[in-house]
Amino acid sequence: MPTFIPNRIGSKNMKNNNFLESERDLSDQITLDDLETPCLILDAERMERNVARLRARLAKFGVTLRPHLKTAKSIEVAREVMSSPQGPATVSTLREAEFFASAGVTDIIYAVGIAPGKLEKIIDLRRKGCDLAVVLDTVEQAQAVASASIDAEMAIPALIEIDCDGHRSGVLPHDARLLLDIADALTRGGELRGVLTHAGASYDARGAEALRVCAENERVAVVDAAAILRDAGHACPVVSIGSTPTAHYAENLDGVTEVRAGVFVFFDLVMAGIGVCRIDDIALSVLGTVIGHQHEKGWILIDAGWMAMSRDRGTSKQEVDQGYGIVCDSTGLPYEDLILADANQEHGIVTVRPGSNAALPDLKIGDRVRIHPNHACATGAQHGSYRVVRGSDNVVVNEWKRFGGW
Amino acid sequence: MPTFIPNRIGSKNMKNNNFLESERDLSDQITLDDLETPCLILDAERMERNVARLRARLAKFGVTLRPHLKTAKSIEVAREVMSSPQGPATVSTLREAEFFASAGVTDIIYAVGIAPGKLEKIIDLRRKGCDLAVVLDTVEQAQAVASASIDAEMAIPALIEIDCDGHRSGVLPHDARLLLDIADALTRGGELRGVLTHAGASYDARGAEALRVCAENERVAVVDAAAILRDAGHACPVVSIGSTPTAHYAENLDGVTEVRAGVFVFFDLVMAGIGVCRIDDIALSVLGTVIGHQHEKGWILIDAGWMAMSRDRGTSKQEVDQGYGIVCDSTGLPYEDLILADANQEHGIVTVRPGSNAALPDLKIGDRVRIHPNHACATGAQHGSYRVVRGSDNVVVNEWKRFGGW
Repeated sequence: MPTFIPNRIGSKNMKNNNFLESERDLSDQITLDDLETPCLILDAERMERNVARLRARLAKFGVTLRPHLKTAKSIEVAREVMSSPQGPATVSTLREAEFFASAGVTDIIYAVGIAPGKLEKIIDLRRKGCDLAVVLDTVEQAQAVASASIDAEMAIPALIEIDCDGHRSGVLPHDARLLLDIADALTRGGELRGVLTHAGASYDARGAEALRVCAENERVAVVDAAAILRDAGHACPVVSIGSTPTAHYAENLDGVTEVRAGVFVFFDLVMAGIGVCRIDDIALSVLGTVIGHQHEKGWILIDAGWMAMSRDRGTSKQEVDQGYGIVCDSTGLPYEDLILADANQEHGIVTVRPGSNAALPDLKIGDRVRIHPNHACATGAQHGSYRVVRGSDNVVVNEWKRFGGW
Repeated sequence: MPTFIPNRIGSKNMKNNNFLESERDLSDQITLDDLETPCLILDAERMERNVARLRARLAKFGVTLRPHLKTAKSIEVAREVMSSPQGPATVSTLREAEFFASAGVTDIIYAVGIAPGKLEKIIDLRRKGCDLAVVLDTVEQAQAVASASIDAEMAIPALIEIDCDGHRSGVLPHDARLLLDIADALTRGGELRGVLTHAGASYDARGAEALRVCAENERVAVVDAAAILRDAGHACPVVSIGSTPTAHYAENLDGVTEVRAGVFVFFDLVMAGIGVCRIDDIALSVLGTVIGHQHEKGWILIDAGWMAMSRDRGTSKQEVDQGYGIVCDSTGLPYEDLILADANQEHGIVTVRPGSNAALPDLKIGDRVRIHPNHACATGAQHGSYRVVRGSDNVVVNEWKRFGGW
């Protein structure tokens, strides 16, 4: 475990903000009051509960969980979600692939359509011992992978991306001609590892029944595409689906070999709005400090703005718009109808949800609050580390570094 | 100047992506084709033109420019915008204050309402020789600054924040009672450095006349507040205003001693929408690579999504919604009506603006595009460095590091 060296500022140690230089501090338990704000808080027990829930669900179906590490961007969190230190795992950037490969993860899918210019780095990581597979949906990409495979004397494995719901990239599941043209071009040097899809449209679904429909549609699309390829004589060992909503609502995974999901490890307000989790499943929050009031407007100003929360307003299209997040007390208990209604770069405006009669809590200058985010992937990316808390008294037990960039 | 070590991947050097290990590479000029995508591109000549424009404008009024460094978060960019290596400058976080103070900037205002728990670090930076001033708008904060000043045997300078347009924090300009209560509490140990306001509402104004009105309202609010304090016998040397829109449209700065502005150094689509700059003044863009198509939908998929652009959709409330940004060719020339219409974490969907009859450009897998962002502060924060380009052939002349966090 990395040494935890918090930046300490606060009433408990105004005389000394260096954790290492003070025996008194070393003998203290570190709490949220000791942390500078804004910072990112990770509730370890909620994370463990979220991971156990999906693991148990998928175990019943006998399919592999291939967690998407783009949400966490942390080796410590990755080891919580992966079934082994070697993986399997999914990534969305070459930086993620390099980072996790160097940390011993040897089974990775880079799940964003491959650009030919990125194949040199793919080959390099494969030579270093990582079974890194790419994703593609055009004949041009398949030809590039095949020819780079021949040059490198190594069959680069690729999955054909299937478009199950029209939200992004991929081949239509019944476009046999294109599927076979891609497979033929790819296998002139490369390896057809399988087919992959992502039910991005599930983020717009609401309620259990709609999510079950999305999940079944996702499964059928990729299973049908695999059948087309196998009927033509192509091995298609991997049939990969995944999105956090469908992973939690699928009732049939026949023909599927693995499920990818990312945000489930932390959950967030968008997932709660879809109905995949409860507010008290959300493991991430941003710790902020009250810096002012506009009393006649019912505003509380805090030092967590959009730089700390991200600009993600994913709940704005949902039934309940949570602004920039739900405001909780420092123990993580939400205040009634209190949201981060607006944000500037380093200012947050906290107020009661429009239409609510809830009372504004009596928060004074210097008081701490915690904000649950709309989108865990976006909010996490604004921070350099997680401050990991455990227990009802929110003892800070660790600091886990995050990385970013490409 | 820092050594420039690009991550190189691309046709020009498929055999070697390490700049330092190849003499051939050293003898080459580095162009955008040699950079991994996505990455952040800074057009040096546009930046220099933007800075010269505001400097020349403010020089006519004889007021000081105190640039806000929250946009740049880079010492190299800071030195382009500051009138001297020592400042003056504005920051929005203690991390920015620490970073720029350690780089020799000695005149800084931390322009976010001070939390008492942050005063220890303010005192520490002042002891190290930086004249760092804080901002406040409550008696409680003034009392905390006064008592910390007495404990530290150092009068901490503070500016009273004035609310000129109701958009955020600050004291109403004619609330003489509160202004004087704050001043009295502050000067029992601390120093009243002056008054400060920010015309945040100018971001919602449109056209020259509306911006002139915002600018005059901003000036009058803070000049009136200063008069109330001076009439009561308080010295109020600094009268500080600032926002990029009002800085470019103010016609009278009587009584103002300094102007703060940040985003002007790069400009962005929100500023263009307000009418403060033209599209070809925007110095920032994100370089992306084409990774796929959905031909029947008229979509081009690229490897720059919201992680590279930020989730900022600031133009969505403007007359022209630019999606996640305006798409340009690799030389920086915008394609007609082509925008980044939607974004996932690492996928961007490029398409022709709804309602336009413009033709979709024939972009192939592996082609490069550049995207001008909605909001320079938000997009910049997603990247670890600027790739600095100069000249019509976009030679990459440098890499300038950015920092983030708190």
